[in-house]
Amino acid sequence: MSKHFGPDYVRAIAPYQAGKPISEVAREFGLDEATIVKLASNENPFGVPDSAKAAMVQAAAELGRYPDANGFELKQVLAARYDVPADWITLGNGSNDILEIAAHAFVEKGQSVVYAQYSFAVYALATQGLGARHIVVPAKKHGHDLEAMLDAIEEDTRLVFIANPNNPTGTFIPGAEIEAFLKRVPPNVVVVLDEAYTEFLSEADRYDSPAWVRQYPNLLVSRTFSKAYGLAGLRVGFALAQPALTDLMNRIRQPFNVNSLAQAAAIAALGDSAFLEKSARNNTAGYQQFVEAFEQMGLDYVPSHGNFVLVKVGNDMGAGARINLALLKQGVIVRPVGNYGLPEWLRISIGLPQENAVLIAALQKALAESRGD
Amino acid sequence: MSKHFGPDYVRAIAPYQAGKPISEVAREFGLDEATIVKLASNENPFGVPDSAKAAMVQAAAELGRYPDANGFELKQVLAARYDVPADWITLGNGSNDILEIAAHAFVEKGQSVVYAQYSFAVYALATQGLGARHIVVPAKKHGHDLEAMLDAIEEDTRLVFIANPNNPTGTFIPGAEIEAFLKRVPPNVVVVLDEAYTEFLSEADRYDSPAWVRQYPNLLVSRTFSKAYGLAGLRVGFALAQPALTDLMNRIRQPFNVNSLAQAAAIAALGDSAFLEKSARNNTAGYQQFVEAFEQMGLDYVPSHGNFVLVKVGNDMGAGARINLALLKQGVIVRPVGNYGLPEWLRISIGLPQENAVLIAALQKALAESRGD
Repeated sequence: MSKHFGPDYVRAIAPYQAGKPISEVAREFGLDEATIVKLASNENPFGVPDSAKAAMVQAAAELGRYPDANGFELKQVLAARYDVPADWITLGNGSNDILEIAAHAFVEKGQSVVYAQYSFAVYALATQGLGARHIVVPAKKHGHDLEAMLDAIEEDTRLVFIANPNNPTGTFIPGAEIEAFLKRVPPNVVVVLDEAYTEFLSEADRYDSPAWVRQYPNLLVSRTFSKAYGLAGLRVGFALAQPALTDLMNRIRQPFNVNSLAQAAAIAALGDSAFLEKSARNNTAGYQQFVEAFEQMGLDYVPSHGNFVLVKVGNDMGAGARINLALLKQGVIVRPVGNYGLPEWLRISIGLPQENAVLIAALQKALAESRGD
Repeated sequence: MSKHFGPDYVRAIAPYQAGKPISEVAREFGLDEATIVKLASNENPFGVPDSAKAAMVQAAAELGRYPDANGFELKQVLAARYDVPADWITLGNGSNDILEIAAHAFVEKGQSVVYAQYSFAVYALATQGLGARHIVVPAKKHGHDLEAMLDAIEEDTRLVFIANPNNPTGTFIPGAEIEAFLKRVPPNVVVVLDEAYTEFLSEADRYDSPAWVRQYPNLLVSRTFSKAYGLAGLRVGFALAQPALTDLMNRIRQPFNVNSLAQAAAIAALGDSAFLEKSARNNTAGYQQFVEAFEQMGLDYVPSHGNFVLVKVGNDMGAGARINLALLKQGVIVRPVGNYGLPEWLRISIGLPQENAVLIAALQKALAESRGD
């Protein structure tokens, strides 16, 4: 008789460390919620677009009913937007759900999954949760080394995760390099291209990944409404892939995984280009605000293509945790990334100009205290 | 090189058949949505309680933020209600998520799962999705045969699913029998007691399963807000279990699996005893309305303890599908259960009195046509 419940690989999971909610920091540090600035979870500082709020009010009448398990209407607008058939789309409870479903649908215990050092924590969690084998490819300048990732693929590799832009580092792989990778990756290996932050890319950096989906049967593109679209609290993401992959995704997907309000809000947000443009403009300005401040403070940072910046707040292994605590005491929540193997760094989301200013001042104070000024 | 994507056991999954949404039936049959009666998904005919709507409006301001990954406030009220510590609670994206998480957390490929014939379809799906082995125990009078289920447990069995009341048959196991089962089941086998319909039980039938959770470290009780509480479209359920199980559940759970509005609405609904009582009264009356009609029509039915009734609409294997189609053409949606091995039966949810009357009239017409009257 086994002594413990659950498979060994489940017992070995280190749970995901979420950004602290404002209410929790208020409780822990005895602060007023209204004064807290949260730049921890790469959320949209404008919140939910008004268009989505209006759509939710409409949809609220039918909330006693189960959601549409097939997401008919949302898939119609996504299909039109990305020029793929509706049955090439999988809806997820956030793109976290898409990533978990993909691992579950394509990989079994003992097979291997390839992903990059310093890439999104859910790749490791999804791999570990299946009892699959991790092949972690060392980062190059905090980003993906696609050449090394190709070389790392083994006979039993079933899935490669690529994040572009990458979280938590903000690094970017040019489209031409991804396309070259897709041409060379073995066709039986599924490539999950996680584009959670793609809406923040500059015009010059954009590439057409839905076109690659039409070309490569082993490619799955993952997107989310949690970042640029401002719907993090509602939970909705989606995947684009050919039927050979989508059919398996839908066998693993829980039938009612995307709630009714999220479906309605996503339809509205997808059509709200003004909100997206406003968010992108704010992000560009906030990034400049941070970069100038970090340079003034003499802090290293990783040039970012997302709505956040990874900044080095000290040279010792305790630096990230120490500065994080000092910021929390001042009512500013950011993300320590020690669990990513980056204990000297913090990941800071780009907020509204005044939120960014609060962070900059609090960081200056924390660093001065840390130096014993 | 493998010819196909995905493990064989994933390729073998037969996807869940959800109740058709009203919008889909309107499209398919050219009907006006407003005239359609849906008694297909065991939803609460009163919809979302007003208390929950008010709570959602409050919570909507912060929807650009990720949900609280730990569900602090909802767990506090659940802990107080069920007299367990907050860290004995797992929140789910509906109880469907709880059932999937439990299978994933406690069972690995090749191990076995025990569940009853004619019990909830997700038990089979969750088992199949892991490449685990199904031990399906024949039903007794359309319900669970606990004695046979005990006998069916093998060396490699890690999980037993019990639904009480059972869906889709509505059968009920008295509390004393479940407690006797818990005393005898091997302590290394996790028992998931799925109580999605427990709020519809009569006073006389109620039992205290949270007390068993305090006593049995291998028991997990699963509940939902989708049925009596009227929150199906929002997606929220929960599990009660001791830390040995809950700790593993939380390693598998996606961190943001329960959206912010669902958490706020569930807190409000849990405190809304008037809504629950109104729903229970309506259910008792609607059950009588159906039972009298079925007896007048000379139809067999399974006595139900849920918010639905399983009724036999013919003696041939095509009866359920035929009568279902005839009902759809009249704008009435019910649930065919051929996928449960019950092709002569239909599952009909209890609605408002006037909805039940529409179903009864439509069923009489469909049966008359079927007989060639």
